[in-house]
Amino acid sequence: MAAIASIAYNVFLYGTALAFSLLISEILRRLDQSEVIGQVLVGIMLGPYLIGLIKPNDFFNFISEIGALTLLFIAGLETDFALLRKAGRSALVLSISSILFTSIIVYPFVYFLTSNPNLSLFLAVVLGATSISLTVRILDEFGKLRTPIAQKIIISAVIDDLIVIFLIVIAIDIIEIGSFSINNLFLMLGKLLFFFMITTIIIIVFVKWIGAHLQKFRARGGLLIFSFSFALLYGYFAGILGFSPIIGAYFAGLVLAETDVEPDIIESISPLAHVTVPIFLVNIGLRFNILLIGDAIIIGSVLSLIAIVGKLLGGFTATSFKSKEKIKALLLGSSMMPRAEVVLIFAGIGLEMGLLDDLWFSSLVIVMITTTFLTPIVLKYLLKRGAFKDDDVP
Amino acid sequence: MAAIASIAYNVFLYGTALAFSLLISEILRRLDQSEVIGQVLVGIMLGPYLIGLIKPNDFFNFISEIGALTLLFIAGLETDFALLRKAGRSALVLSISSILFTSIIVYPFVYFLTSNPNLSLFLAVVLGATSISLTVRILDEFGKLRTPIAQKIIISAVIDDLIVIFLIVIAIDIIEIGSFSINNLFLMLGKLLFFFMITTIIIIVFVKWIGAHLQKFRARGGLLIFSFSFALLYGYFAGILGFSPIIGAYFAGLVLAETDVEPDIIESISPLAHVTVPIFLVNIGLRFNILLIGDAIIIGSVLSLIAIVGKLLGGFTATSFKSKEKIKALLLGSSMMPRAEVVLIFAGIGLEMGLLDDLWFSSLVIVMITTTFLTPIVLKYLLKRGAFKDDDVP
Repeated sequence: MAAIASIAYNVFLYGTALAFSLLISEILRRLDQSEVIGQVLVGIMLGPYLIGLIKPNDFFNFISEIGALTLLFIAGLETDFALLRKAGRSALVLSISSILFTSIIVYPFVYFLTSNPNLSLFLAVVLGATSISLTVRILDEFGKLRTPIAQKIIISAVIDDLIVIFLIVIAIDIIEIGSFSINNLFLMLGKLLFFFMITTIIIIVFVKWIGAHLQKFRARGGLLIFSFSFALLYGYFAGILGFSPIIGAYFAGLVLAETDVEPDIIESISPLAHVTVPIFLVNIGLRFNILLIGDAIIIGSVLSLIAIVGKLLGGFTATSFKSKEKIKALLLGSSMMPRAEVVLIFAGIGLEMGLLDDLWFSSLVIVMITTTFLTPIVLKYLLKRGAFKDDDVP
Repeated sequence: MAAIASIAYNVFLYGTALAFSLLISEILRRLDQSEVIGQVLVGIMLGPYLIGLIKPNDFFNFISEIGALTLLFIAGLETDFALLRKAGRSALVLSISSILFTSIIVYPFVYFLTSNPNLSLFLAVVLGATSISLTVRILDEFGKLRTPIAQKIIISAVIDDLIVIFLIVIAIDIIEIGSFSINNLFLMLGKLLFFFMITTIIIIVFVKWIGAHLQKFRARGGLLIFSFSFALLYGYFAGILGFSPIIGAYFAGLVLAETDVEPDIIESISPLAHVTVPIFLVNIGLRFNILLIGDAIIIGSVLSLIAIVGKLLGGFTATSFKSKEKIKALLLGSSMMPRAEVVLIFAGIGLEMGLLDDLWFSSLVIVMITTTFLTPIVLKYLLKRGAFKDDDVP
């Protein structure tokens, strides 16, 4: 009966994580607090370092990944392409400046503590990456995902991810062979160009030929199965080019956003998000080793502060530091604060490479937790101050 | 980038399997043929023994299991409890007689070929188990899931599973220690009683106290998350008692079927079924080693024939062999023909125990494929002959 038992255990993990997520969500909703925070807390509490009810395994990671993919796919679907074009340039300014500020402060801080230029470089780059998934989830929770300013934030976060993955490839080159190969740089640029070219072609093909036929599926759930497998395969496509699969899912959403069936897709895919996204959030909490908190807390706190300040400075740069736009600058900057999936993946790679030790890894986890907890609180404050106005042209 | 690559590969497997399932479903729908057959075919064609695009792994198995769980959960939700009580006794006759007839023919056949009493006993028991998942899927495809006769069939298939798992425990006892322990038998009976007792209590609790509050969730997707995690945890509960998790999911559905929110639950969980059930079907096809078909084909065919005849005889027994009820007997019997998950699980265990060799394993897979292909064809024929009449009292 070993087969049954092993399946039953994974079913147990999944069911337990969902049940506790729901419980805490219901409590927090009634207290008018963020569900995102609650679900990360579930992970911390039930995780291996506290109660130990949920021990992360590959299956849990897989559902978590499907959750992040679904979330980004929906974000793509809800993006207005015309708006995106208009917002593109200022979004680029926001992401570049926020990465730059973060890196410029992180490098000397880490170097001061460790005198290790490789570690300093690695962390300076990795901490630039905003967590698109968390940003989307939090904006969605406030019911603001479709506002122009939210869309600008999301596209900035996407650009962020692409730039950071780029920089990490260069950084790993420098760390491993002492210099960065211009070949690798061009290869990445070529891949990126290829990805955008293909996406553009597919958008044209969809808008011109396929879009009108998407209402004609006869198989049960045809439209949903089509859209979801499209998102998965686009995620794979991004993955083999070296980008994150969730970036691919976002672009798959962008493509389908241009079709008439977009509302139907969002409606039928939402249930899938409901049962997978909580796992993504719980999974972040699971990494938190509370036993290490004593040593990591100072470094983690300072790193969190830097990570927050870097993004806020980016927000001010993108709004040209005009005093009357202070709230908007704060909104842009603080929405870009969350760190999660990219930091987590590369922190793992850093451990494998022997660059990070447990202390630095835990410090990075503290950054994830702090920024995730802080963002909804700041956004709620800004929301009350009228930061999201629908007439806001980004 | 190893982490990204490994996730991307699983995303690829999932996306590809869904995309091809949809493609073949669309074609078969237009030809008015069964989607179930098509999706098993996708597995055979893309599987490791032919094209090799999809290689089964633990993640694929996991999605497949979630698919089977969701399917059975929905079947439970669609069950009418009052009807179930009325149908209970005749359903019991149908399952006991169909298991009995199958076993009685399988044992001498296998013994004749192998002179191996252990193997004969094992196969005689294992082949009794109807695949509830396939039966449900096929009845649902014909839009007949809610008819009284379909509900009788499903409850028979559930009883089947329970009895067969019971018998297998005894059979393994006999094979391993030469006799069966009365302790084990009582332990199993006790567990079964415990399971039913808890279920009855939970149904009462739900109907009396919880049911009315299920509309009050405030968290997004609250009702869905609640129901789905309930199904998963009930599956786990069945699993730790030694039954199949999908049996647990079916009973979870039965419990929630008695609440007012049942239609809302079905609506919100259906998308989940759409993107997981095809994987369950593709996964069956993946096992089919076409290279072994030459050797296994004769044994597999005869076994299939026995497996079919056994269930048909069960159908006639349940309708007391009255000639005017011939179509109904055929409907009952043929709906119980499909073999899949239980046979697959125990075939795996048989391989591990050294009871089965590759030849017998492949023969069992042939039984799965044949019965799966044949059932929709027979049911379609019977449907045309008016076998499903809604005034049919089971």
